[in-house]
Amino acid sequence: MTAAQPSRLQFGAFVMNTGSHMQHGLWRHPEAKQHTFDDVNLWVDLAKTLERGRFDTIFFADVVGVYGGAGASFDVNAREGMQLPSNDPSMLLSALAISTEHLGLAFTSSILQEHPFTFARKISTIDHASGGRVGWNIVTSFLENAARNYGLDRLVEHDERYAWAEEYVAVVGKLWEGSWDDGALLADKASGVFADPTKVHRIDHVGERYRVEGPHLSSPSPQRSPLLFQAGSSGAGKAFAADYAEVQFMMAPSIEAARASAESTRALVAETGRDPRDVKFWQAMSFIVGSTEEEAKRIEAEYDELLSADAFLAHSNLGTDQATGKPIDPDTPLKDVETQGGHSMLEALKALSPDREPTVRDLAKLTAKLRGRVVGTPEQIADHLAEWRAAGIDGINVANWMIPRSYEVFVDEVMPVLQDRGLAQREYAPGTLREKLFGAEPTLPETHPLRAYRGAFAGR
Amino acid sequence: MTAAQPSRLQFGAFVMNTGSHMQHGLWRHPEAKQHTFDDVNLWVDLAKTLERGRFDTIFFADVVGVYGGAGASFDVNAREGMQLPSNDPSMLLSALAISTEHLGLAFTSSILQEHPFTFARKISTIDHASGGRVGWNIVTSFLENAARNYGLDRLVEHDERYAWAEEYVAVVGKLWEGSWDDGALLADKASGVFADPTKVHRIDHVGERYRVEGPHLSSPSPQRSPLLFQAGSSGAGKAFAADYAEVQFMMAPSIEAARASAESTRALVAETGRDPRDVKFWQAMSFIVGSTEEEAKRIEAEYDELLSADAFLAHSNLGTDQATGKPIDPDTPLKDVETQGGHSMLEALKALSPDREPTVRDLAKLTAKLRGRVVGTPEQIADHLAEWRAAGIDGINVANWMIPRSYEVFVDEVMPVLQDRGLAQREYAPGTLREKLFGAEPTLPETHPLRAYRGAFAGR
Repeated sequence: MTAAQPSRLQFGAFVMNTGSHMQHGLWRHPEAKQHTFDDVNLWVDLAKTLERGRFDTIFFADVVGVYGGAGASFDVNAREGMQLPSNDPSMLLSALAISTEHLGLAFTSSILQEHPFTFARKISTIDHASGGRVGWNIVTSFLENAARNYGLDRLVEHDERYAWAEEYVAVVGKLWEGSWDDGALLADKASGVFADPTKVHRIDHVGERYRVEGPHLSSPSPQRSPLLFQAGSSGAGKAFAADYAEVQFMMAPSIEAARASAESTRALVAETGRDPRDVKFWQAMSFIVGSTEEEAKRIEAEYDELLSADAFLAHSNLGTDQATGKPIDPDTPLKDVETQGGHSMLEALKALSPDREPTVRDLAKLTAKLRGRVVGTPEQIADHLAEWRAAGIDGINVANWMIPRSYEVFVDEVMPVLQDRGLAQREYAPGTLREKLFGAEPTLPETHPLRAYRGAFAGR
Repeated sequence: MTAAQPSRLQFGAFVMNTGSHMQHGLWRHPEAKQHTFDDVNLWVDLAKTLERGRFDTIFFADVVGVYGGAGASFDVNAREGMQLPSNDPSMLLSALAISTEHLGLAFTSSILQEHPFTFARKISTIDHASGGRVGWNIVTSFLENAARNYGLDRLVEHDERYAWAEEYVAVVGKLWEGSWDDGALLADKASGVFADPTKVHRIDHVGERYRVEGPHLSSPSPQRSPLLFQAGSSGAGKAFAADYAEVQFMMAPSIEAARASAESTRALVAETGRDPRDVKFWQAMSFIVGSTEEEAKRIEAEYDELLSADAFLAHSNLGTDQATGKPIDPDTPLKDVETQGGHSMLEALKALSPDREPTVRDLAKLTAKLRGRVVGTPEQIADHLAEWRAAGIDGINVANWMIPRSYEVFVDEVMPVLQDRGLAQREYAPGTLREKLFGAEPTLPETHPLRAYRGAFAGR
């Protein structure tokens, strides 16, 4: 298999079905509409805007609990709308599918929240409905409250969560890749054969956590397995990504850190026997755009006024002790706090204030700036993105300050400049999301481990 | 509370996201399009047709396994497309929500297939997206293969499934009704308060099967709890319906049987302290319409030609022994077969052929006719439906022979006659699905048991 390596960057819109996803406090801006996230039309209109701008995907982050330790107060979360309330992103996808033609529809779903038999069918349904445009961001949940919403006493230990994810991915992979052979579905009115029974199989999965008989209830969708996104940055997370991910998300603090991280993951990918070109690396960034640098800086100052330190602190998952739920003194040095994943900002913070030990309070203040904020004119932004592309980064997951305004500005003012420089596509490639991003076949490449389930259940 | 008792009938479209739902073999008809069920546009177009005809709801049946005993062959199921393949109906709903304005969106979801914390959020999301038009058909799953897709050794015993359902409904009810007080959501840009933390609560559910901390992640949707459908006809099923159902589905073999069943359930409802007018009774029927009686009978004969006895036998869940998966001789008397729920045809079959003991083969042959098939002119159909209305039946769940043709014919030829007689609505009432069907408030009435959770978690 040869994966084409386009010189353009790929673009995702990094959103969440909630009022305050990452840039907390901005929902209060007069032009912001993210507080109306209950309204499906906010998302339908956004998807149309993104397709007009030739974005590759809309990508929904998600969590299935509130930030804060076990039993902690979630007063700040509620008051700030900090990912509370939030809605299920998967339930929006068919509306977005019929409102667009090309836009990829990617969403986050945790192994905690759905049984793999249910999840596999859900994905097949929406991949059918969208003509093969679905992506799945595989996550394991890192919030104590999420664990306690699903009957666990506390969060499963980090590496054990990845072992759980391995089995989860195996179950859904068996259903997507192995349960139905190519050509099983006939729907032939003349012969009266709907599906060829010799090509439909039980999977008889028996594992540590799941026993699943099958067959998969849905026939193979255009992509079979959805495009697989992954964002883990720990050792276990990177190993998992090397095995399965087709797009790896990053929130690297610098181009050099991103390049190093991508290169180390590519090496891991090659060790598994996969082609390293079968994994794309997307960096999260947010943009503040002005027609002049001065205007951009003025807007930046305006946004900074609205930023809520309380919400950033709660979002850092450091506002309370994870085990006891007790509040943490914001002057506590970060090095003394048990982190439990969920933020990768510590090293960057140390780099920003090398002269003193960063505290919990510093994290809250600096998170917004650290999250790949780029401020400038469209030309300056294009210059900056060209550097990331030159460093081997394949895509940018564009976070927002305001929905839909941040994307309207990006589409109308930045995209044309990027297109002129060959850094962004002017038209979509044909086919499924996987074909659009890789220029190859609609289903997983031969060397992907889930492909091993193709034909594995013949005779069952 | 006073529930208005309209004289019109209510109408649902009884469909399933599959190629062959109930009238097996008909997908082969040249005009049938249900074999294209993977295509979301089949459902979008159908929903628009139903709204044009002032149907109250589209209602999706569903199962999460194949018919047949544990480990049985599903060759017939696949070959006939008999509910295999099938897709997740919930994943279509946002597309239908943005394509219609008034149509109710009801679907079946089993307690087996989704954790109640996930399910509650899914419902809230789509109730928000549709402006309060969602209905949930609560089922417990009666298929051995479904149990084995979800890690169970075999199906949980029937009454125990209802105990499970009781806890499931309690968890989702606590999340929908009790976790967020009225007025909690402010999204007030001036004060910066998104939600009032004093009005958002954990539910701290601890039960036999579930432990769920909360809070509910979604804010209250227009209906809070979806409109609750139930179809159980056993003792435990009717008791469950009496406690919770707002619409009770029936497949009664005659008007008299339907009247008796509705009256006995209404008595049970009254015993629970609910107003019996808060439960509607909908009978499943299918229609073959001709401009003359002769034409209708000609079409009936044409459809009968296509009916597949093999598929009916497999669908009866009697083709194989449920415990061993071994094939059953079709000449076995029905009385000697362990039924395990899933069909309520036995008494009706005995009534149809009182002179001899009905066999498994008879069931297959007669199921189509028994499923409330009405054949005639629009006027004859209206006469017949007027009798059902007079017997106290509130609604008709219209099954189909062909999608979309059966509904186009019903909308274009039968509905106008029904409207002229006051048996069908000409315009939708305003508001949520619950308001449209009951003429009362958008949320559950005061006497519904889930209402007891309103305000129950203050201080948490």
